[in-house]
Amino acid sequence: MQLGFVGLGKMGLNMVTRLVRGGHEVVAFDRSPEAVQRAAANGAFGVETLEAVVDRLATPRAVWVMVPAGPPTESTVQALSSLLSEGDTIIDGGNTNFRDDERRARDLQTRGIGYVDAGTSGGIWGLTEGYCLMVGGDEATCTRLEPIFLTLAPPQGYRRVGRAGAGHYVKMVHNAIEYGLMQAYAEGFELLERSNFDLDLPAISALWQHGSVVRSWLLDLTARALADDPHLAGLDAYVEDSGEGRWTLEEAIARGVPMPALAAALFTRFRSREDNPFAERLLAALRNQFGGHAVKAAAPAGPTQ
Amino acid sequence: MQLGFVGLGKMGLNMVTRLVRGGHEVVAFDRSPEAVQRAAANGAFGVETLEAVVDRLATPRAVWVMVPAGPPTESTVQALSSLLSEGDTIIDGGNTNFRDDERRARDLQTRGIGYVDAGTSGGIWGLTEGYCLMVGGDEATCTRLEPIFLTLAPPQGYRRVGRAGAGHYVKMVHNAIEYGLMQAYAEGFELLERSNFDLDLPAISALWQHGSVVRSWLLDLTARALADDPHLAGLDAYVEDSGEGRWTLEEAIARGVPMPALAAALFTRFRSREDNPFAERLLAALRNQFGGHAVKAAAPAGPTQ
Repeated sequence: MQLGFVGLGKMGLNMVTRLVRGGHEVVAFDRSPEAVQRAAANGAFGVETLEAVVDRLATPRAVWVMVPAGPPTESTVQALSSLLSEGDTIIDGGNTNFRDDERRARDLQTRGIGYVDAGTSGGIWGLTEGYCLMVGGDEATCTRLEPIFLTLAPPQGYRRVGRAGAGHYVKMVHNAIEYGLMQAYAEGFELLERSNFDLDLPAISALWQHGSVVRSWLLDLTARALADDPHLAGLDAYVEDSGEGRWTLEEAIARGVPMPALAAALFTRFRSREDNPFAERLLAALRNQFGGHAVKAAAPAGPTQ
Repeated sequence: MQLGFVGLGKMGLNMVTRLVRGGHEVVAFDRSPEAVQRAAANGAFGVETLEAVVDRLATPRAVWVMVPAGPPTESTVQALSSLLSEGDTIIDGGNTNFRDDERRARDLQTRGIGYVDAGTSGGIWGLTEGYCLMVGGDEATCTRLEPIFLTLAPPQGYRRVGRAGAGHYVKMVHNAIEYGLMQAYAEGFELLERSNFDLDLPAISALWQHGSVVRSWLLDLTARALADDPHLAGLDAYVEDSGEGRWTLEEAIARGVPMPALAAALFTRFRSREDNPFAERLLAALRNQFGGHAVKAAAPAGPTQ
């Protein structure tokens, strides 16, 4: 079918490519003309403005938004909604907070515009392996868009999980689970790395892929990373987060659900960004205060002085 | 090849069956005559005493011990070591603490008896899928036993990871990772269960198996469990542990490695066994002391009064 596609970053470009290969007609736009050219080279119809996306599509239109969550998505959805007509649909495939989806769906519904949130998992591997799609929105709209979902997803990898917001809610929790899984592997492999047994981490990660209880896709990626760099010597121990772990923890607090492993994973990421964190300086100061324990002075120059 | 096998529980019986199917001659013993009969029915040569295992095997003998970790394994290894001769080998396939392996390997070496620790993962599914084997021991002995390991493991699922103790060390950390992975899924699915979106957990767990970042063998098992009982209504929220999470945390403390997700997972299991835990009673008491907050009296009869 015909689909507008806004946002041609790493993820968006691969999705457009997969859609084109699946026989869909994709009208692609990005603020970066180079990104539009890459999409066009992969078979999409590239355009230079959001207006041109809307003009090019026959009604009822469907436009997939795949831009960073937060203000970029919000402004894109707002701009699109002023261009679209009754019966059209906006699909947000990014990592939007489910509360924003609920608000947008409500607002757009007053004008007869559909809104679908499609939580999309698969990262840069989705082009070949397919994207797991967790879709929220009203049933009729989602059914009309199924040809798109079925092309993007691997077999059995698409499902409407509920009303608008449900898709991103499920994706949010998916990502929180991902944080915990990654933390579990990270802790275990660090202990192996620091053991007395002179262990071969690339070999062990590869071994566990075959018949062990901890085999997983994230373990496959761990094995790849360790095969490339057995001691991860080329990396800085700095870990970003994209917001969904925080939202999940906020939701856990709102519902009174304990999530200690997620909290540990998220806080580990926060701490990874600090060279000389205040809390540990306070701990050192207190040990010195009550017990006269030695403290180390701050380095003479450094980013956190 | 010829192999003695001691311990025919759920795991041991399946392993014997897989070995017999692989063409090996297995001399099987268990304290339970019924277990020996089941092994014999599956093609092993069943015997009634440990002495008969040793008598039946040609030298150099190899005997696999698959009994519960701790005293049962220790006494079996001790009894075997007094029956075996120079050149024979004991393989401990259970969940032994790596420090016990190091001690046993040292003691047995003085008498010329080999000792191999084979960390074995795969649970009740190993019979069909194969067991991931993490093997510790001297290289010559492990090489001689390779036909056994290759039959038990799936392709690429066996590896000698180091000297005696290394196999169970790697298996210990494997199980600790398993604790963390399980905790991550448990926390995430509880939030889904308690969300406002009326989510279909069996459907979501099945969906995530296809193309998502959190797909894994443990997710496959989660999907099976939820398909059988979508709200897990038939289960009590009581979780055992078999010791390896504790040992890993002890080792993490010894090496100064933070493992907060493992700690969260292990402590969650400890707490799951208490109906009316002391710490939470103390928290309630303190809130009452300083703020006059209401407390709930203990139920008139209960296990923890």
